[in-house]
Amino acid sequence: LKAQIKAKNFKIEIGNLHTGERNCITDVPGVKVGHTTISNGDIQTGVTAILPHSGNLFNEKVLGSLYTINGFGKTTGSIQLEELGTIETPIILTNTLAVGVGMQAIVEYTLKNNPAIGRTTGTVNALVCECNDMVLNDIRQVSVTKEHVFQAIEQASKEFAEGNIGAGTGMVCFGLKGGIGSSSRIIKLNDQTFTIGTLVLTNFGKMEHLTIDGKKVGPLIKDRLTTNIEPGEKEKGSIIIIVATDLPLSERQLKRVLKRTTVGLSKTGSYIGDGSGDLAIGFTTAHKIIHEDPSTFSTRQIIQDYLLDVVFQATADATEEAILNSLLASETTVGRNGQKIYSLRTFMNHIM
Amino acid sequence: LKAQIKAKNFKIEIGNLHTGERNCITDVPGVKVGHTTISNGDIQTGVTAILPHSGNLFNEKVLGSLYTINGFGKTTGSIQLEELGTIETPIILTNTLAVGVGMQAIVEYTLKNNPAIGRTTGTVNALVCECNDMVLNDIRQVSVTKEHVFQAIEQASKEFAEGNIGAGTGMVCFGLKGGIGSSSRIIKLNDQTFTIGTLVLTNFGKMEHLTIDGKKVGPLIKDRLTTNIEPGEKEKGSIIIIVATDLPLSERQLKRVLKRTTVGLSKTGSYIGDGSGDLAIGFTTAHKIIHEDPSTFSTRQIIQDYLLDVVFQATADATEEAILNSLLASETTVGRNGQKIYSLRTFMNHIM
Amino acid sequence: LKAQIKAKNFKIEIGNLHTGERNCITDVPGVKVGHTTISNGDIQTGVTAILPHSGNLFNEKVLGSLYTINGFGKTTGSIQLEELGTIETPIILTNTLAVGVGMQAIVEYTLKNNPAIGRTTGTVNALVCECNDMVLNDIRQVSVTKEHVFQAIEQASKEFAEGNIGAGTGMVCFGLKGGIGSSSRIIKLNDQTFTIGTLVLTNFGKMEHLTIDGKKVGPLIKDRLTTNIEPGEKEKGSIIIIVATDLPLSERQLKRVLKRTTVGLSKTGSYIGDGSGDLAIGFTTAHKIIHEDPSTFSTRQIIQDYLLDVVFQATADATEEAILNSLLASETTVGRNGQKIYSLRTFMNHIM
Amino acid sequence: LKAQIKAKNFKIEIGNLHTGERNCITDVPGVKVGHTTISNGDIQTGVTAILPHSGNLFNEKVLGSLYTINGFGKTTGSIQLEELGTIETPIILTNTLAVGVGMQAIVEYTLKNNPAIGRTTGTVNALVCECNDMVLNDIRQVSVTKEHVFQAIEQASKEFAEGNIGAGTGMVCFGLKGGIGSSSRIIKLNDQTFTIGTLVLTNFGKMEHLTIDGKKVGPLIKDRLTTNIEPGEKEKGSIIIIVATDLPLSERQLKRVLKRTTVGLSKTGSYIGDGSGDLAIGFTTAHKIIHEDPSTFSTRQIIQDYLLDVVFQATADATEEAILNSLLASETTVGRNGQKIYSLRTFMNHIM
Repeated sequence: LKAQIKAKNFKIEIGNLHTGERNCITDVPGVKVGHTTISNGDIQTGVTAILPHSGNLFNEKVLGSLYTINGFGKTTGSIQLEELGTIETPIILTNTLAVGVGMQAIVEYTLKNNPAIGRTTGTVNALVCECNDMVLNDIRQVSVTKEHVFQAIEQASKEFAEGNIGAGTGMVCFGLKGGIGSSSRIIKLNDQTFTIGTLVLTNFGKMEHLTIDGKKVGPLIKDRLTTNIEPGEKEKGSIIIIVATDLPLSERQLKRVLKRTTVGLSKTGSYIGDGSGDLAIGFTTAHKIIHEDPSTFSTRQIIQDYLLDVVFQATADATEEAILNSLLASETTVGRNGQKIYSLRTFMNHIM
Repeated sequence: LKAQIKAKNFKIEIGNLHTGERNCITDVPGVKVGHTTISNGDIQTGVTAILPHSGNLFNEKVLGSLYTINGFGKTTGSIQLEELGTIETPIILTNTLAVGVGMQAIVEYTLKNNPAIGRTTGTVNALVCECNDMVLNDIRQVSVTKEHVFQAIEQASKEFAEGNIGAGTGMVCFGLKGGIGSSSRIIKLNDQTFTIGTLVLTNFGKMEHLTIDGKKVGPLIKDRLTTNIEPGEKEKGSIIIIVATDLPLSERQLKRVLKRTTVGLSKTGSYIGDGSGDLAIGFTTAHKIIHEDPSTFSTRQIIQDYLLDVVFQATADATEEAILNSLLASETTVGRNGQKIYSLRTFMNHIM
Repeated sequence: LKAQIKAKNFKIEIGNLHTGERNCITDVPGVKVGHTTISNGDIQTGVTAILPHSGNLFNEKVLGSLYTINGFGKTTGSIQLEELGTIETPIILTNTLAVGVGMQAIVEYTLKNNPAIGRTTGTVNALVCECNDMVLNDIRQVSVTKEHVFQAIEQASKEFAEGNIGAGTGMVCFGLKGGIGSSSRIIKLNDQTFTIGTLVLTNFGKMEHLTIDGKKVGPLIKDRLTTNIEPGEKEKGSIIIIVATDLPLSERQLKRVLKRTTVGLSKTGSYIGDGSGDLAIGFTTAHKIIHEDPSTFSTRQIIQDYLLDVVFQATADATEEAILNSLLASETTVGRNGQKIYSLRTFMNHIM
Repeated sequence: LKAQIKAKNFKIEIGNLHTGERNCITDVPGVKVGHTTISNGDIQTGVTAILPHSGNLFNEKVLGSLYTINGFGKTTGSIQLEELGTIETPIILTNTLAVGVGMQAIVEYTLKNNPAIGRTTGTVNALVCECNDMVLNDIRQVSVTKEHVFQAIEQASKEFAEGNIGAGTGMVCFGLKGGIGSSSRIIKLNDQTFTIGTLVLTNFGKMEHLTIDGKKVGPLIKDRLTTNIEPGEKEKGSIIIIVATDLPLSERQLKRVLKRTTVGLSKTGSYIGDGSGDLAIGFTTAHKIIHEDPSTFSTRQIIQDYLLDVVFQATADATEEAILNSLLASETTVGRNGQKIYSLRTFMNHIM
């Protein structure tokens, strides 16, 4: 794997907290990410899978939560996640019209690994998130198959690429090429070290609003664009934000943490447009929730709420940086009908 | 169509409001319901489609809302329905592991009728609801196909059967055969008449709790059961409750109305078990919401909130009766592994 | 204290779970209840205080949650309770226009016991709940004072009276005399015994809907009423439901439990009218949350969710019975303008 | 009234939308604001009243909504506002321990103007919001009286001062003197002009995070502070954000608008700290909701959702500017125990 281009390559540092080793969501121990990219002319789409751990997720669920920043989106699994506070499948990212394919793939994957489902135990709640990649991808052709999903899960690893890859293949963000971005922050509490990692799928924003570390660069880019095509005029699209941590949190606390992704999102220039399906999903690996645990009670550690400020900052900063990373890691891409969307890197010499 | 057996055939009347002509959700003008039944030995499942109107639902959305009674369920489309307050597809009911199939069918159906999707306009939010029919159906075989969904939509009509049919084919409720039930109530406001209709997919409850119009009949049925098989010992399963009306309501008011389905559900004996995915989805046909309406503002009539009491009662009563109708309309069914689930009708002479 | 009249005196048993020793919320170890009654001609009102424990509640908070059944109400403290999941004051019940008095009393009470507030630590979140007793009480005269609140707190005890007393002095329920009612249920998990206790302030319902253990007795009472005065024609008023337990629950689980109070409420005949401010507030004494706990993490036991069914049933049944107890414990009362509201006991011989 | 110092005096322009005539919430036709300031040595507190219109608010309610950014706060009236979507009193801002006083003042004020309350109609829902001014104010002395609240209401006017005045008298924001700030934006839809106005009570943030129009100035200010006193080290306090508009919106849409206040708040440097009670309350004057309106239905205009983007931007920008205005309008203040909190203006020459 070649070295990932990130914000730091451009001397951009978001906030004053330290990043983890890879500056990725996979800095959280156990977390893996895999991609399947489908790139072929008018078809520019794919699948990204986030695995909270490498074991049997249905048997050993992780504590999860979600926060809807703006609900113009089709993510599945939200109702049960809200009620029970557990994630029991890989989290799948793909395009909007392939969500059902993602669900059926997760059903098949989970049935295969859990023969008790539908016999002596209940069913499975698939978490499939989406953005609409119709600018670069012929989304009307539902190109994603169950096999693409299986492949993304199988290839999941601690090392993964960012930018126009996996579910990010066809995404457009601030009128530039968006996609997958990731970042992490390290926090210390007493003598213990914990990691907050984020992974985003970016497909939102109007170019004129793009802001990098406080600098409004969008108008500068607009001035340099000679193309007649003006994508992103209406703020639509979406962002999916995945937050992972090994910090012991309750569901209530995790939802509080997820709300702070809005802080990072706002600082990149988003006004959270009407048509933008902006959703944050998070999990902590600090406690496993055993399926039908035979013990009556389980014991959980949780942080004191008044210590959360640094966690909030880490989450906001890692979200802001992950969005920038998604832009900086992406290559200029030509997709459906020859539509060309530029990489932010094309303009970096001129705007920063 | 043979005459539908309903609660009134057993001299059971829930509440003191009048029922509509058919005592069905289709008493609400424009609403249609269609079924596809898949019944073959170990396979006992199906699809039910509810159409708020017969036009192009994507272009002419209806105002909708949802209320999660207990979120142990996998219904899709909830996030956008909550944010925008619109329903833009048929509502599909099916089994839990076929929800993704339902989504892809709705995507294909909507793309076919709307060539602008993915080109000049955005995507579609599919509403697919589910219950787990694993007791009678080999749910691990995902028997439902997109064609089954198309067929249910095509066959939608004002006349439809209740009981073990469509999505209700394999459902079990209070340890008895559940499935599809429907009811309606008529309310008068000034000189105008409005209809509240409900349709339920019942798959919940412990037999010992079954209550008919205040009478606790569950224990009486348990005494008569000679079978060794004791289904429904743990309250699990689910109920999906669809509420339709032609009364002008806002999204906020509609959610208030949907919360009152819990009243009807409670009176049948449900304690809303941990594992029961109980969800109410509703819509009013009083105003169409035009997709990308070129006018800046739209005008809506809404009822005064202080007049809602009779609407609440109508909703609660029609929910309670629809649940009883689902039980009374169902036939004794033999499904997976020879599992036999009795019709409530088997016991009516002895318990009422 | 004379023996409290309860539903069991009339051979009414709600559900099949055992009640606690007193069949009261104070069966939960540590919980106390106190009343101040203000009864003098046109003034029929008061205060009831529920103490989760007898220590310094600000320093040792209890885990709490709330669930809004219908939000036509003025209860304070809900926003912080939702965010932090803690209760740090006695819960005060009083009439609607005295809520601010209740808040100021709680502020004064808490300041007195906590000199650090406003100096080295933050402020206090007062939980004050209310119903509108305007039928029997001249509510426009704000008769409740801070001293009445202090007195209710000071007199809190494990033994307390029900009916037309404390905050219940002037309440009307189903057109009959309502007020304070309480009940409890015992559950066993493994070899451990836990208690679910409820206390209600009842001021809701239309007489025609009153239902006792499944029997619709409201119409029978209406037939016997010779008075021209017909209170309760419009379902308004409210119910406040307090749920206490010593079972280890998380905030998420406690909210799930609180939602089941609706089941008990529904079975008494409520349709949850538009104008009824129906709210459930609950707490568990299983873990104390220390104010500004110096440790980084705290450890909590929580029940497995799939074991919650019996807890749900206990909560629903104890809510239903507490409502009936509030009616059966109340005496016929004459209040503002000579308005006379009958006790349900007046009619029991004729209706059951 | 002397000319108000605002961000534009320092050549700071937030966003590219035009401001209204006064650049104040009172640019929304009919809206008025009044203050009572209590400033005397250790007592630095007060009351601010926002009047949606000058008529009888109980009889002619406005459509309102609220959004909890972070619920560590004691604002009253939220439950009913959420349920009914109406505001029926002036909105009162004051200090945390005087909220009950504010409620009783609103009760007395509303009873006086509405003799039917408590006789032939129900009660009133008081909206009282707060921040904790304990750094500069001896909050343990509850200095605010009902008369202070009446006075703020009576003095309400289209012209009002910002900074350390009214409820803002003792507030601290980013370790600097905060208080009341206001701003407005004008939007055009078709040929019609609408106004979005904001008013904030600022009492949040750590100095090191203060950001002005993208520039992180907080660290620059910290370097210049020679005082040993380091206020605001822990991010606590709160912000109350009031949003007013004359644009026709539904409750659902208004809540969507209110969520965008988080965007403006984030850009000033807030990470929405654990202890910060951050709440947005909004109303539209576009439709009056008549108390117990005798007509069955009312008619409302609402905007098409897909046109909301500019409304979201206006709200975010006016929130960001109002916060800056609250800082720039405030004077350096000495309060309790001689604690001195500097005005941001002290540092402007050095940081911008």
